Amino acid sequence: MTRPSGRQETDELEARAALMRAADVGDPVMGRLVAQYGASEAAATIRARALPPDFAAREAQHERPPDLTGRLNAWYARLAAAKPAADLEAGEKAGARLIIPGSPEWPTQLDQLGPSRPLGLWLHGTADLRFACLKSVAVVGARAATSYGSHIAAQFGVGLSEAGWTVVSGGAYGVDGAAHMGALAADAPTVVVLACGVDVCYPSNHDTLFAAVRERGVVISECPPGVHPTRARFLIRNRLIAALSRGTVVVEAALRSGALNTATHALSLNRHLGAVPGPITSSMSAGCHRLLRERKAVCVTTPEEMIDLVGVIGDDLASQSRVPAVSRDKLNDSTKRVLDAVPARGGAGPASIAVAAGVSLDAALSALGGLAAAGYIERAANGWRLRKTATSYRKAPESAALQPPATEEADEQADDPPFPDDLPVPYQAAEGTDA
Amino acid sequence: MTRPSGRQETDELEARAALMRAADVGDPVMGRLVAQYGASEAAATIRARALPPDFAAREAQHERPPDLTGRLNAWYARLAAAKPAADLEAGEKAGARLIIPGSPEWPTQLDQLGPSRPLGLWLHGTADLRFACLKSVAVVGARAATSYGSHIAAQFGVGLSEAGWTVVSGGAYGVDGAAHMGALAADAPTVVVLACGVDVCYPSNHDTLFAAVRERGVVISECPPGVHPTRARFLIRNRLIAALSRGTVVVEAALRSGALNTATHALSLNRHLGAVPGPITSSMSAGCHRLLRERKAVCVTTPEEMIDLVGVIGDDLASQSRVPAVSRDKLNDSTKRVLDAVPARGGAGPASIAVAAGVSLDAALSALGGLAAAGYIERAANGWRLRKTATSYRKAPESAALQPPATEEADEQADDPPFPDDLPVPYQAAEGTDA
Repeated sequence: MTRPSGRQETDELEARAALMRAADVGDPVMGRLVAQYGASEAAATIRARALPPDFAAREAQHERPPDLTGRLNAWYARLAAAKPAADLEAGEKAGARLIIPGSPEWPTQLDQLGPSRPLGLWLHGTADLRFACLKSVAVVGARAATSYGSHIAAQFGVGLSEAGWTVVSGGAYGVDGAAHMGALAADAPTVVVLACGVDVCYPSNHDTLFAAVRERGVVISECPPGVHPTRARFLIRNRLIAALSRGTVVVEAALRSGALNTATHALSLNRHLGAVPGPITSSMSAGCHRLLRERKAVCVTTPEEMIDLVGVIGDDLASQSRVPAVSRDKLNDSTKRVLDAVPARGGAGPASIAVAAGVSLDAALSALGGLAAAGYIERAANGWRLRKTATSYRKAPESAALQPPATEEADEQADDPPFPDDLPVPYQAAEGTDA
Repeated sequence: MTRPSGRQETDELEARAALMRAADVGDPVMGRLVAQYGASEAAATIRARALPPDFAAREAQHERPPDLTGRLNAWYARLAAAKPAADLEAGEKAGARLIIPGSPEWPTQLDQLGPSRPLGLWLHGTADLRFACLKSVAVVGARAATSYGSHIAAQFGVGLSEAGWTVVSGGAYGVDGAAHMGALAADAPTVVVLACGVDVCYPSNHDTLFAAVRERGVVISECPPGVHPTRARFLIRNRLIAALSRGTVVVEAALRSGALNTATHALSLNRHLGAVPGPITSSMSAGCHRLLRERKAVCVTTPEEMIDLVGVIGDDLASQSRVPAVSRDKLNDSTKRVLDAVPARGGAGPASIAVAAGVSLDAALSALGGLAAAGYIERAANGWRLRKTATSYRKAPESAALQPPATEEADEQADDPPFPDDLPVPYQAAEGTDA
């Protein structure tokens, strides 16, 4: 379903799957090669062991020119061993999917990463990554979190989720795991970004957690299936956590820690950065305090304060307002028909929705993308369904982590798009046509 | 000893002592009256029940003109009952002294308070207030401090003191008391600013603490002897704590608290403001976190970080340097002779120092003021003595509060003035003459 239709798109997908085997994650040289020549042509030049001369010339002009020969040899050897069609088939069998730039589910905010943008992302789970990350906050912190840090991370997971914000984090013990568990406790999708293949469970004791995330959220990685984590992959992975989300909050971090690495990525990407203070007697809060002291981060003590930081003024701040920024009335006819054809429960694929709506498959796909981005519909295990919007923005009680998720107020809020300033083009066109 | 010599000075002192009985503390109308007409003339116009017409005219032009008639009646009645000579005599008997603007011990930084500058200050203790406050930090926070807050306050008291910084705070339980106890544990002077007469022990269980402060530091108040604290006097008092010190650090504070009031005064006086973070689960840290979040305060986690904030660049930051900014060689002859006449132990009065140095009493008084401000000498119980300079700036260990005070490195450091950019005029003149 997520694989683009058409021979050309399949070629692009297979070429990128192959290059993901060939290059190290986040390699900017590969990023520039693919950006300039396309994935298929890039793979062809590597297989021919001859990079385009003008590319080599440009790379040589960099302040610290890369070792192109070394890279080409490594790429060549790995590419020769790559079996992209088998990867895609095995992924599909396991329930995972590969998305690439241009896929409907591709989070375009990753484009800010420039040449280190991932060549593709392996996704395993029911949530729509693009939609889930439209309103998302990265909750990061120490693996060796204190009980204070774990408590706060879970509380932020619950509070952000209840306010309709998706948690993005790694898959580690400590803050990462607690934040995801908080989100799951609030029955909300959550995004786990791994530094290994989505089929590799690291740490292994998180198998139950990752299974739960796949049920309700999505586990993602830029590593091909079967790849194991390394220290370098963890650090490279952190840029994805920062880039996917509107802002990052550091819950607990020692002075030297991966969480501070993610914080640095967030700042360099001009994302919001929050830090949770803690006792000055705790070395696990020292990194947070340094961020505050250097005024790199804003002091954040509740999920609402983090939402205030990343939220759109007039949307999340003035959350009492029930008037949707883009109402159902403003959808164009074809989009309205598609919306009416999306089931409230279960899920339906684009083809059956197109038939039910009486529109072409292309029109249905375009409308579904816009409706998802606007928060009307969401991806379910077996297609699209109407989105039960998150409960309205409210203060998470101290004991939120211990309470059952709030009752969902379903359909009358369904036409309140959560992120109206980031609509994809088809949706904006629909709005323009009828307004 | 601290009472200015000469009939005119005695008149001024008595007039101010009387007006301190007549006006509410910090009354800006009284402040303006005294500033424009002098204390004696102000008292005379009140006794005559007729304020100068041009003063009344100017007061009437204020945006919110004061009720001059009501004030005059109150002042008149209280002034009639005031016995300033008896106040001064009783104070002297009890060991307290009254200082007024122009007194050698007057901390001129209080002049920034404008019309709400105190008319005078009652001091009880051995430390020289002006000198003690040249390098001082206000450590403030909740009365109902948690054990975390008390621990941190004591640690800051020790750390600031060991680095040669005087603690200024109120006399309350919780953070105030712990900060003073930390300073005393480091065998350093500390300044308690009361909202009642210096002879009134409030809270009464702090009698031992205040006695210890009088031994090594100084207990001060703008309230005449015998006056009891009120809520209003506490809030007015807070401006003195902020104005006396180079900066204020809030250790623990609830969202509504007196410590935040002091913080506001510090900001309005352009003093540095630090806040110590704590667990976000503690309501006693919520006020600190709000100051951080609103970027009104700098995040401070150690005494050294507070010193970095308030310290003079090149002085406290580059504290390894042992070269005094103004060396003993640069003192003029008369000042050098006075310095040589100051005893290392015990103490000597200005008159006996003048005789020993072979200079006039006026010359001795002027030189002593400059030497004290430069950190060469300090006030002892019975006069002046050479100052044992504080141990050099160093990191306070985690367990500082539990350790005995550091061994004092005495005489070879005695010519290292701690605050050379704030020398009083006579001292600067001395430097200019010989340089």
